[in-house]
Amino acid sequence: MPKKTSLKPFFDPKTVAIIGVSREPHKLGNIIFTNFINSGFKGKVYPINPKADEIAGAKCYYNIKAVPESIDLAVVAVPAEIVPRVMRECVAEDVKAAIIISGGFGESGPDGKKREDELRRIIKDSDIRVMGPNCIGIWDGHTKVDTLFFPLDRLDRPREGSISFISQSGASGAAVLDWAAAQGIGMNKFVSYGNMIDVNEIDLLEYLKDDPMTSVIMMYLEQTADGRRLMEVAKRITPKKPIIALKAGSTEAGAQAALSHTGALAGSDQVYDAAFKQSGIVRAYSFDELLDRAFALALQPPAKGDRIAIITNGGGLGVMLADDITHQKIHMAKFDPETTNALRQKFPARVGIDNPIDLTGDANKDSYETALNLVFADPNVDGAVVIILFQLQTIEEGIVDVIAKANKKYGKPITVCAFGGGFAKKCATKLQFEKIPCYPTPDRAAKAMMGLVTYGRKQP
Amino acid sequence: MPKKTSLKPFFDPKTVAIIGVSREPHKLGNIIFTNFINSGFKGKVYPINPKADEIAGAKCYYNIKAVPESIDLAVVAVPAEIVPRVMRECVAEDVKAAIIISGGFGESGPDGKKREDELRRIIKDSDIRVMGPNCIGIWDGHTKVDTLFFPLDRLDRPREGSISFISQSGASGAAVLDWAAAQGIGMNKFVSYGNMIDVNEIDLLEYLKDDPMTSVIMMYLEQTADGRRLMEVAKRITPKKPIIALKAGSTEAGAQAALSHTGALAGSDQVYDAAFKQSGIVRAYSFDELLDRAFALALQPPAKGDRIAIITNGGGLGVMLADDITHQKIHMAKFDPETTNALRQKFPARVGIDNPIDLTGDANKDSYETALNLVFADPNVDGAVVIILFQLQTIEEGIVDVIAKANKKYGKPITVCAFGGGFAKKCATKLQFEKIPCYPTPDRAAKAMMGLVTYGRKQP
Repeated sequence: MPKKTSLKPFFDPKTVAIIGVSREPHKLGNIIFTNFINSGFKGKVYPINPKADEIAGAKCYYNIKAVPESIDLAVVAVPAEIVPRVMRECVAEDVKAAIIISGGFGESGPDGKKREDELRRIIKDSDIRVMGPNCIGIWDGHTKVDTLFFPLDRLDRPREGSISFISQSGASGAAVLDWAAAQGIGMNKFVSYGNMIDVNEIDLLEYLKDDPMTSVIMMYLEQTADGRRLMEVAKRITPKKPIIALKAGSTEAGAQAALSHTGALAGSDQVYDAAFKQSGIVRAYSFDELLDRAFALALQPPAKGDRIAIITNGGGLGVMLADDITHQKIHMAKFDPETTNALRQKFPARVGIDNPIDLTGDANKDSYETALNLVFADPNVDGAVVIILFQLQTIEEGIVDVIAKANKKYGKPITVCAFGGGFAKKCATKLQFEKIPCYPTPDRAAKAMMGLVTYGRKQP
Repeated sequence: MPKKTSLKPFFDPKTVAIIGVSREPHKLGNIIFTNFINSGFKGKVYPINPKADEIAGAKCYYNIKAVPESIDLAVVAVPAEIVPRVMRECVAEDVKAAIIISGGFGESGPDGKKREDELRRIIKDSDIRVMGPNCIGIWDGHTKVDTLFFPLDRLDRPREGSISFISQSGASGAAVLDWAAAQGIGMNKFVSYGNMIDVNEIDLLEYLKDDPMTSVIMMYLEQTADGRRLMEVAKRITPKKPIIALKAGSTEAGAQAALSHTGALAGSDQVYDAAFKQSGIVRAYSFDELLDRAFALALQPPAKGDRIAIITNGGGLGVMLADDITHQKIHMAKFDPETTNALRQKFPARVGIDNPIDLTGDANKDSYETALNLVFADPNVDGAVVIILFQLQTIEEGIVDVIAKANKKYGKPITVCAFGGGFAKKCATKLQFEKIPCYPTPDRAAKAMMGLVTYGRKQP
């Protein structure tokens, strides 16, 4: 019988106890405490260590009972053997939620399994909600809850956005935040839920369904706690919010690896694939595809069809992108003869006016504007992937407005490829501030568009 | 009858004339001249403009005849109609090589085609070697010849390395340099050869074959000037130097796009595929795969087989990589029982010792060293893809030496995945200085390893 208590105290606690804050700066508990007090979190944070009076200038408490306030969230980072005792104290003190970071449970042999069963018994008849054990816990971009045991100078936290990510994998999942930050992608929540003695991915989906801060849900999973319920819940979510799922272990070798990683009995990949399709989940096949598609879905409307126009100022990248579009099993739009005529009138002979439209190396913002407006006005076009070689001197800053304006005017989705180095990346950032998702390579821009098409197919 | 004169003056001229240097800083000729004098090029550079006495402080010449020295390389950036006259002057003045940047020839309608034929007649009976027209020309990381009309603040030039790149696409090809620079990848030469009225990709392959500065050759092509000769030449090169080729237009839509881009009648993709295989060319399917594989081949020995070990400190990335290895149609190594026993003795129960070896989140350099030495000593292992989540506090700087040492000791290839953001990228740079190619995602590391396997298959 699943518990009914809300998961809110995990994400928006007023009082937090970090249990097991070592004096040594490189130990997990210390890193978590340090991150918490530096993250901008507005609530109270209490470090717990029976052997210290003070840590980093903060008064330290002997145990959770000694804390003068009632605790909303306990973060447990003590050795596995001590976890049961700590959890008994949490239950006794009516702590609302606990994240057990500590490993040494179901994932590590028979003794660990026994300890995990003991934890289940301890929390069984109480209202406490428990994440883990053997997890990284939570990062919340809005409330700044941050239980990630990664120092801030090693793992960047992204800016606040509307993408939330629930991950069966801990460290690899957390590194996605770092990857997102490096690309200027905003995130809302990250949850690594570990061994799932209580909270599982389905509870989290239910929570995110009603979370007004989350507009797109990403999942990394190696197996599901309950396939049927996952589908039921997803079916209720996907008409309102996209879910993008990375199901690892899609090959035999991968499934074998998943078995030893999380004990996942992966099950047939085709079953997952069919289930995802039926419940409107968009599938991704790599961490970058997962984030790339989520980013596109967070910023752009879904595509109403799969006929895509390409506009480029670099012919080679246009050719590559036409290949990429085909590999994604979506279609190069065939322009209406009226569109073709208008393009021919507007552009000199050297400009390729079939799809891809190759504006050639001296294109400027006006050529992009003309081309984009003509193809978006064409009923045979459902979306556009725009390649901009920002390296060319003729590309002015105003191109950002041109793209953003056409995007808003026609309500058709755009993804952009800004191939290259530092300058291209700076320009990409400007586009992203105008809600245009940018990617460094044509295939990533094509795959992101495919995400918008796939989600669009399930929309009424 | 192909010309016999060497291509050396293109790459290592003592005297260069830039013909058509406008006073306006955003015009092509001006950008090229400015880049040339700022690039570190050691020879003499003469700007030519009949209407100016001085440009950017340098004395300007009326025409090439007025220059007091004989010219090794002329860079022609004047309007198309004037190009024939300029080329007649170049021939008359015994210029050794000319790069015609100007467009408006075969690629742009019947008038252009006529002009291009005129150029062919002009150069036919002379010794001058001609690149273009309608090209970007050359960047040489060693001599610093730089005819790229991209400002330095928009397109970064990479550091000097041993990868050379010949590209049928101009702007898109040049942007690969920018992309390489952003990833710390060293390059030797870049050539955009345009409409090929004289020099084509086969001449360039012949030249790079004997170029001691070039250890790896990358090609982007939409069609070949002569398929049979390409194969012949490639067959002589690939036993000594790897060639990685990106053949664009592999799908119908892509082939259509190539037709309008370079007029390439792409021909059947299977024919190219078979030809590449026969002549030992490693194929790539995207710009990043092209560069990723070239980078691996420049730094690492080819693999002697396709049985790959994975070592990771992030379980999820290990699972993804096992999937990626399978998608590349190479194999996860099955360890010798002796290796498995040794791994079991060295590591605690929570460490996954099957392939992938999951060292888990508290791995340090010593665990990587132990694992890497054991798997490389195993005759069933041909190479290793190593995942390092540098975000974890336990990973010390010394890991760089550990990886580099095992790599040298066993002579088996390594590619590394350093997933994440800024800190991971800094660590990747350190590994790259020790000749370990690093990639931000597991699938790119897997694809790079596949390049080492493919090239290795053709080695005796």
